[in-house]
Amino acid sequence: MIEDLLATIVGVDHIDVGDQISEDATHDESLDGVPVRPRAVVRPGSTEEVAAIVRAAVVEGIPLTPRGSGTGLSGACTPVAGGVVVSFERMNRILEIDTDNHVAVVEPGLTLAELDAALAPHRLIYPVFPGEQSASLGGNVATNAGGMRAVKYGVTRHHVLGIEAVLGTGDVISAGGKFVKSTSGYDLTQLVIGSEGTLAMVTRATLRLHPRPEFHTTLLAPFPTIQAIASAVPPIAASGVGPLMVEYIDLVSMAGITANAGIDLGIPAEIKEAALAYLVIVLENHDPTRLEEDTEALAGQIAGLGSLDVYVLPDQAGTQLIAAREKAFWASKANGADDIVDVVVPRASIPSFLDRVSERAAATSSLVIGCGHAGDGNVHLSVWQPDPDVRHTLLHDLMTSGLALGGAISGEHGIGTQKAGFLAELEDPVKLDLMRRIKAAFDPHGILNPGTVFDPVGPSGAGGATGATGPALVTGAGR
Amino acid sequence: MIEDLLATIVGVDHIDVGDQISEDATHDESLDGVPVRPRAVVRPGSTEEVAAIVRAAVVEGIPLTPRGSGTGLSGACTPVAGGVVVSFERMNRILEIDTDNHVAVVEPGLTLAELDAALAPHRLIYPVFPGEQSASLGGNVATNAGGMRAVKYGVTRHHVLGIEAVLGTGDVISAGGKFVKSTSGYDLTQLVIGSEGTLAMVTRATLRLHPRPEFHTTLLAPFPTIQAIASAVPPIAASGVGPLMVEYIDLVSMAGITANAGIDLGIPAEIKEAALAYLVIVLENHDPTRLEEDTEALAGQIAGLGSLDVYVLPDQAGTQLIAAREKAFWASKANGADDIVDVVVPRASIPSFLDRVSERAAATSSLVIGCGHAGDGNVHLSVWQPDPDVRHTLLHDLMTSGLALGGAISGEHGIGTQKAGFLAELEDPVKLDLMRRIKAAFDPHGILNPGTVFDPVGPSGAGGATGATGPALVTGAGR
Repeated sequence: MIEDLLATIVGVDHIDVGDQISEDATHDESLDGVPVRPRAVVRPGSTEEVAAIVRAAVVEGIPLTPRGSGTGLSGACTPVAGGVVVSFERMNRILEIDTDNHVAVVEPGLTLAELDAALAPHRLIYPVFPGEQSASLGGNVATNAGGMRAVKYGVTRHHVLGIEAVLGTGDVISAGGKFVKSTSGYDLTQLVIGSEGTLAMVTRATLRLHPRPEFHTTLLAPFPTIQAIASAVPPIAASGVGPLMVEYIDLVSMAGITANAGIDLGIPAEIKEAALAYLVIVLENHDPTRLEEDTEALAGQIAGLGSLDVYVLPDQAGTQLIAAREKAFWASKANGADDIVDVVVPRASIPSFLDRVSERAAATSSLVIGCGHAGDGNVHLSVWQPDPDVRHTLLHDLMTSGLALGGAISGEHGIGTQKAGFLAELEDPVKLDLMRRIKAAFDPHGILNPGTVFDPVGPSGAGGATGATGPALVTGAGR
Repeated sequence: MIEDLLATIVGVDHIDVGDQISEDATHDESLDGVPVRPRAVVRPGSTEEVAAIVRAAVVEGIPLTPRGSGTGLSGACTPVAGGVVVSFERMNRILEIDTDNHVAVVEPGLTLAELDAALAPHRLIYPVFPGEQSASLGGNVATNAGGMRAVKYGVTRHHVLGIEAVLGTGDVISAGGKFVKSTSGYDLTQLVIGSEGTLAMVTRATLRLHPRPEFHTTLLAPFPTIQAIASAVPPIAASGVGPLMVEYIDLVSMAGITANAGIDLGIPAEIKEAALAYLVIVLENHDPTRLEEDTEALAGQIAGLGSLDVYVLPDQAGTQLIAAREKAFWASKANGADDIVDVVVPRASIPSFLDRVSERAAATSSLVIGCGHAGDGNVHLSVWQPDPDVRHTLLHDLMTSGLALGGAISGEHGIGTQKAGFLAELEDPVKLDLMRRIKAAFDPHGILNPGTVFDPVGPSGAGGATGATGPALVTGAGR
């Protein structure tokens, strides 16, 4: 029995089977995903235990699903029936905060909130804030997590300097290190980041830190149209002021997220009536005088770019608005949204993309609203359309439109299990075949997170891997 | 004859054979490399022609060596005897400068100088300056080129958003695009960057641009030791001033590069006598007042960190010093250096590394001097040691010491053919095997740049690939 073998590896206290398995372990936070009960949940305490679990799974042909905090939005940690969930909750230590090199070395189960609390006293920051502070660093690495600060700092990919990881063979590798540059063979760190647990399980990450700016201001500018906001972004980017966040929020989303958070921004009724969308910009600086100068200059610039007005929010209101924006997904979920999309397009193509969205929403009698990272072209849409077939067609159309504009299916949520069918339909088959060959190079038995990103490659006749071919491709319909 | 087939693909004017092949095409700029005459040099004019060349090479089993400007320092574009050089000199167009999205789309043969000249009127910059402006963008992508500005902007990897590339199968793929974030399958762009032409030939790159700051200052601070410089770097980095460059130059290198460039920095004799190393910091800003404030604050900070003095160089002297520093390699070459090393270590480990360098140089009666990117731990050393075996042992020791400190063999020059032997000796065999499997996923016939990074993988019995197994691994000795 694999369960007995696993229990000898992690100890009987750190494996759940049968009724011991919590409902939480059967799904992530994605909408409309179908929970799956795994055969067991194991909680390794070390890299060596992870490697031993993989070796056991290879022998027994058992698929493994790595799991961090389970806050993902694409079903990437949805278990496979008959498979084993590898939960990293015990591997949650900060191994080092190196203030000379500005790096932290962490285990994958550590949460963003825990890391931030530990860094603040050093006046350092890990600047990737995907909006869910209970998310784990391991999950962030798996999905290449982004968030509102990406316009200034980039995403997870730009801040993970090195990893330790367990391959699908049970081998442990270390790649990268406490440096920002290397050309010494292929960059395995970058390849594993964003691979959603299908290539390797990350057991340690070396993270780049930055000095922590102390002062922030939040500007809020209502605009008559989203198109006007998108047109305003390039000149703001060209000004060199380097905003921390450049977000747009549409009319309905703004009403939803402020109501959900119980905040009133005090915008006059006549402005509210004319505004179809809001631009939110956050600036940060180490120097309060410079921040004030930049805020004033930027407010003047925005006023000249077609906004109905510009408000510099008081500290508390600014913080509340950003916190509410981070919870936009939860507001949609609370209001019964059927699905979400996070297509990324070139930032100047946001208006064209949203024109298409409006057209398709109207044509299918769907409600599609959203907000997004205007500075980097990542559009977050919530979709209300109860009919699964109509919804599938709508989502297919939105992704196709994003791709036609030179974009990608997902900016930061990932493909997971829920968009694997769309990737199979929409991505170049030559690239998919290449990705499958890369997958086979890391995971020849196809045991790592099958069903996520694409159906796993199991070399025909590979010993013991027969149980590891995973579920059929999810088509997206009905999910 | 492969030559006839290639001539039909690129046209007879764009293939050189026999005596038509220029001496230039037989080597790059690396020291001590052995030139190799290829069977032919072809100059494709389009992606389709590159793909057709690859398909012909697969059928005939002919190895291909991609070549940009040939300014590399690791022998990565050294041809294979009997192989064909694919020179990208004709594919040198700027296809687009997109000022709204702050990206440029370029062909691989374009030089950095040409790109910079085209961007300046738009007040935009591609901020990767590896120090050789005649280098091609394709070569920069292949080696993940870095340079002095990496401490602020990062390296090539952080600025290439997407590529079009031809695989070793002749298939053409497009990956990434005009966006900084995506999680939609594996990041093929990042994998190809830094792979030194062994995975694919890049035929187009989408580059991230930045607003071009107009104002710069250069600070020069003599220090009593390099150790003192390394200790000064973390507090400077923590100050949040965000320097464009943070370089150290040792005593002998400073004398060499200033003499080579014919510049006199006017440093008093008594300071010169006490200084064993120099810290050079360049600041940039959009606002001259802020630049002045930052310069003053930084000069004060440096003075408190153990420098013998701090000079703010006049504009012309600053520009000259940086230009001379960029030519440090040429100064070494002109003075008969036998080899160069560009090990990267965590920046706080530079003193430990240089202690080891001094010890090994003394023990082997070698002269080892250098300068480096103090802000990012990338140490450039020139080595004078005429005996090839002693030199090999010395280089091996230096690389081993860098790795023991958590570093990597090469920060930016790459492995090429000249360090392939060291990689084979020093890298984890598990990672090398994984890299070979990745190579096979892109280039199953082993025809792309054999002998570079490692010996190529040719599946046994693969049709037509017998001529493509490439040279034996270079050991580094005697080169």
